[in-house]
Amino acid sequence: MEVRTLGVLTGGGDAPGLNAALRAVVRRAMQYGIRVLGIHQGWNGLIHGRVEPLTRYSISGILPRGGTILGTSRVNPLETDEVAERIRANWRKYELDALVVIGGEGTLSAALEMHRRYGYPIVGVPKTIDNDLCGTDMTFGFDTALSVATEAIDRLHTTAESHDRVMVVEVMGRHAGWIAAGAGIAGGADIILVPEHPFRISEVCQILNHRKSLGRFFSIIVVAEDAHPHPDEDFLTPEEKERVFQHTRLGGIGHLLARKIEELTGIETRVTVLGYTQRGGVPTAYDRLLATRLGVKAVDMVRASEFGCMAALQGMRMVSVPIEQAVSCIKRLDDELYETARVFFG
Amino acid sequence: MEVRTLGVLTGGGDAPGLNAALRAVVRRAMQYGIRVLGIHQGWNGLIHGRVEPLTRYSISGILPRGGTILGTSRVNPLETDEVAERIRANWRKYELDALVVIGGEGTLSAALEMHRRYGYPIVGVPKTIDNDLCGTDMTFGFDTALSVATEAIDRLHTTAESHDRVMVVEVMGRHAGWIAAGAGIAGGADIILVPEHPFRISEVCQILNHRKSLGRFFSIIVVAEDAHPHPDEDFLTPEEKERVFQHTRLGGIGHLLARKIEELTGIETRVTVLGYTQRGGVPTAYDRLLATRLGVKAVDMVRASEFGCMAALQGMRMVSVPIEQAVSCIKRLDDELYETARVFFG
Amino acid sequence: MEVRTLGVLTGGGDAPGLNAALRAVVRRAMQYGIRVLGIHQGWNGLIHGRVEPLTRYSISGILPRGGTILGTSRVNPLETDEVAERIRANWRKYELDALVVIGGEGTLSAALEMHRRYGYPIVGVPKTIDNDLCGTDMTFGFDTALSVATEAIDRLHTTAESHDRVMVVEVMGRHAGWIAAGAGIAGGADIILVPEHPFRISEVCQILNHRKSLGRFFSIIVVAEDAHPHPDEDFLTPEEKERVFQHTRLGGIGHLLARKIEELTGIETRVTVLGYTQRGGVPTAYDRLLATRLGVKAVDMVRASEFGCMAALQGMRMVSVPIEQAVSCIKRLDDELYETARVFFG
Amino acid sequence: MEVRTLGVLTGGGDAPGLNAALRAVVRRAMQYGIRVLGIHQGWNGLIHGRVEPLTRYSISGILPRGGTILGTSRVNPLETDEVAERIRANWRKYELDALVVIGGEGTLSAALEMHRRYGYPIVGVPKTIDNDLCGTDMTFGFDTALSVATEAIDRLHTTAESHDRVMVVEVMGRHAGWIAAGAGIAGGADIILVPEHPFRISEVCQILNHRKSLGRFFSIIVVAEDAHPHPDEDFLTPEEKERVFQHTRLGGIGHLLARKIEELTGIETRVTVLGYTQRGGVPTAYDRLLATRLGVKAVDMVRASEFGCMAALQGMRMVSVPIEQAVSCIKRLDDELYETARVFFG
Repeated sequence: MEVRTLGVLTGGGDAPGLNAALRAVVRRAMQYGIRVLGIHQGWNGLIHGRVEPLTRYSISGILPRGGTILGTSRVNPLETDEVAERIRANWRKYELDALVVIGGEGTLSAALEMHRRYGYPIVGVPKTIDNDLCGTDMTFGFDTALSVATEAIDRLHTTAESHDRVMVVEVMGRHAGWIAAGAGIAGGADIILVPEHPFRISEVCQILNHRKSLGRFFSIIVVAEDAHPHPDEDFLTPEEKERVFQHTRLGGIGHLLARKIEELTGIETRVTVLGYTQRGGVPTAYDRLLATRLGVKAVDMVRASEFGCMAALQGMRMVSVPIEQAVSCIKRLDDELYETARVFFG
Repeated sequence: MEVRTLGVLTGGGDAPGLNAALRAVVRRAMQYGIRVLGIHQGWNGLIHGRVEPLTRYSISGILPRGGTILGTSRVNPLETDEVAERIRANWRKYELDALVVIGGEGTLSAALEMHRRYGYPIVGVPKTIDNDLCGTDMTFGFDTALSVATEAIDRLHTTAESHDRVMVVEVMGRHAGWIAAGAGIAGGADIILVPEHPFRISEVCQILNHRKSLGRFFSIIVVAEDAHPHPDEDFLTPEEKERVFQHTRLGGIGHLLARKIEELTGIETRVTVLGYTQRGGVPTAYDRLLATRLGVKAVDMVRASEFGCMAALQGMRMVSVPIEQAVSCIKRLDDELYETARVFFG
Repeated sequence: MEVRTLGVLTGGGDAPGLNAALRAVVRRAMQYGIRVLGIHQGWNGLIHGRVEPLTRYSISGILPRGGTILGTSRVNPLETDEVAERIRANWRKYELDALVVIGGEGTLSAALEMHRRYGYPIVGVPKTIDNDLCGTDMTFGFDTALSVATEAIDRLHTTAESHDRVMVVEVMGRHAGWIAAGAGIAGGADIILVPEHPFRISEVCQILNHRKSLGRFFSIIVVAEDAHPHPDEDFLTPEEKERVFQHTRLGGIGHLLARKIEELTGIETRVTVLGYTQRGGVPTAYDRLLATRLGVKAVDMVRASEFGCMAALQGMRMVSVPIEQAVSCIKRLDDELYETARVFFG
Repeated sequence: MEVRTLGVLTGGGDAPGLNAALRAVVRRAMQYGIRVLGIHQGWNGLIHGRVEPLTRYSISGILPRGGTILGTSRVNPLETDEVAERIRANWRKYELDALVVIGGEGTLSAALEMHRRYGYPIVGVPKTIDNDLCGTDMTFGFDTALSVATEAIDRLHTTAESHDRVMVVEVMGRHAGWIAAGAGIAGGADIILVPEHPFRISEVCQILNHRKSLGRFFSIIVVAEDAHPHPDEDFLTPEEKERVFQHTRLGGIGHLLARKIEELTGIETRVTVLGYTQRGGVPTAYDRLLATRLGVKAVDMVRASEFGCMAALQGMRMVSVPIEQAVSCIKRLDDELYETARVFFG
């Protein structure tokens, strides 16, 4: 099939590198004489016909910028028949021959379903700052999140040391502890708590006391937003558990952990919730490079009609893998990295 | 009076630049053949005799590091007669001829009282990330706080734009809005709320709605931790007010403001509390330079017997001002800067 | 005089903060209902009629970006009568009521002459990364240059230490040693050479040897591009002198100094010329704030008809000073800062 | 074999992450009750008996620092029989049971030879900012070099754009174009020249002229220090070729290329040689993480008696590979990455 017009959209949460990927899609397509239409706000733009041609002028200067020039949303293209019909109409109207969908687990699942159910010729590009997508060694956005979190931990170190305090740093990571483990190791954390390994508050306090006995009156604890206490030593009330689970704004696991530590050890403890600073802003060189390579690969896959697949990184190589691989499971923190993190506990 | 042994201590909260100031004190003193004793953990070290000689070796490499190699504390040297007596004994024991005290309002007030009541030959060096000390144009630590907060706002911008959200960024600033106004202007905030000017929630929502009408579906609000609603439109419960006042960990003004905005406008609103990342880590070039100049000046003042005074920046020059000037009032955000901030509201 | 249409241009070398200043001019003017026309490529745009209206949309997002969206040039508006005539015609054509000129010594001199000779209502905004303009305490661009140079010196430190080398770092600074002294102090240089104080190579080598005797086998030397040897100990050939003077690309003072040091001391010496990285890229928070305040002030001065004057920083305040003050002399490195730099020699 | 005392040394050029690797070796060894002796200045310390025990105190705080606390050198342990004898004596004197050697091609080659010829139980850890070692997907130091070079290119972009100039950026890379290609792609370069693909100056100029015809009056060219013209279009004199080959300080390929471009196109062209800033300073989170994992793995390999091997990264996993693999060839830039770079030419 010859592809003359290629759509591209970004869905789900934003991640540094989205613009780099968009630019790469456009520039690679240009080489082949393929016209690219940018679809605004995820699937929403396809439903409501909000599209614009992307040219070398519209993508000029976007490489180092966070976010996505197309905007994004979490709209589901399969929600109702009406929505499906509108997409079909706009697909025809804009004479799309294929679509590159850049997104995380939710967006790629929808893309796969669109491909399977209706036969849309779709190629995926994986993206999540959490790095928990299967099928690819790394996703762009993750290295930037790691970098921001590590720099924040570096900064907190000096205050912790000067004031003999415990600093609890809550980082992102819903289902997996990649950011916590990565930034914890890179930032020199003394304790790292991840969702994959429920923690014992007694062990946490023991480590803090051990450090004190070594003359280390400060400590840095990095905790993933979804880390939780082991059932044997659960110190959260049902209401607090709910709060952590829902990621409400008024105090997650970081604050609850800090309160418990102060109660049990008497050491002054402070909390920093890094929050959205981890997912925005200038992407690292690594993320720009990865996003660019994935964008180029996605267009090559479109030309090779590898639909229902996504571009992925395996070792040093760009490969094509079925989207199904990516969305069928969550890539949990691997044992080697967790074991490495534990080397520095205490 | 010939000074042969000079003590130096850092007190109060840590601030980027403390090590640069310590290094400058030691290197300048070396030029005059003065021996420097570093006193650990603020006044505490003088009470308990925790001192060490500072040499060019012990200060090597500390210039770019945050925190303070001496540690710090908020201990009051005037608390009891016993404490005063211990300090006197240690002063004699270590044969101190003069003392350089690096600290903020609290530490400098104590230094002044020690000088006045007991005649200790003390020279001050002002420090606060809040920039709210009188008698000096700028304090070190402030520029680094500004830089960290601005970079965070830059990062939040991209997420706000990609998701059409309101982002509330809570920054430090107990009594004065310098960080909020400075970082808000430098980061391109759409609304800036400072302690000096109680805000009207109705005005905030009006600006957000006005932006929406211009096609701006995202907004950045920078709020100082001690900003508060105008009495006419107070939306805080007494309990919430207490919470903000006490800077408890479970949700300050940022969170309360965000909740109210969502309630009144229906726009998705997220909060980031920058917290301790603003006060630690590698100091900016500006802060290193300022701290170095102040440290050098302080030693020159010791040699000139300008005790009860502190080194200060006025315009481009290093000057000596009575410590009293610095501690008698709080330097509030000036009108020109607030007016500049308001230019960009909306 | 009521101002309805205000032109704005940027001239001379680019400096981080130019876009922040442009944005401030536009937003302040909007408050007063003044229309702003952006003139492209300095005076060139006025000669050839390359102008565009600047609106809140065209300036959106430019605050953190280096360079200038208007472009810049070093074209002289007073070069010929023909040029003067074309400017006059375009001034009328675009119905300009006043002009804000953002630039350094050259651009502001031309602006002053245009005001004096032909009565153009012009307000200046000073800009130079070299910080050598009189009449203002600081110019925007300088803090960013300082920051970039200091970070580079930080990086070079670790290689110098690991390899026991002398590292020569050549920084910008044609007529004045502000960047060299500032970044040298902030970066912990062991020797700082500035145009204001011709250096003796014998003193340089003596310091290096002294350091060696203290067990310091590495050293960092920061040298301004226009620093030069003292006539008593001139080691440059006439041809080399010419090369330094013309800032040709093949080896300036940094390389010549390094070669001489190796020759005289036998210590392995490496050179890094920071070059253009110092003048581009994301402006620091300080520079964005300063540029914004100057831009706002310039519009206020236009409304107050303070023509022939420029906005300036004095202490903490924005003031209006005659442009003549800025262009009549070069602000050389002050003695206090140079004396501070020397504290750390050796 | 039970290992009670483990030596560790760092050799060759310094790279960000060396300290992280050292810290990891020490902390992992501590877990097993193994004592670690740090050997100063590469093989030199083993020859002259300059060693010190590394404890959790001596490695505290070194994680984020560039360089190596042990120092480094390029001394060859196999140079003479006398040197070999001294090493043997010191090995016995310090009761070393095994040695971890952290270094690049030269240092690892020597380590392998020491293992083969004399049976020393040695485990390697690969390191080079150039990323040109075989047997491992990535070496630490490379990501930091990439990051520094990319940030510099970001900064140069704004000046290039504001002044309509060609900017030539010379980056490191003796035998391979990894840094040039990586930073060139991540920084948005318009032309990237690498040692693996001799360039034609006519093609370079053609691209620049094509860009001009598209209204792009500025261009960024990234050139590796060992890139060279194609024999068909060689514009270098024999003397210049020699200069580039020897990496003398007075003008390498960057300057020669710039001169030729100005000559052929008449476009103003400027050069920046990034030099040593690429190899020093705070390592990125990625490099700290990689170095830490390799250090931990190396100790595990010591315990498993996998001597003559080195720790390596393959995909996401830490593996053990024969050192021979790493030193038998140079890992040249792969085709996919070069092809990706070319997508953005012009």
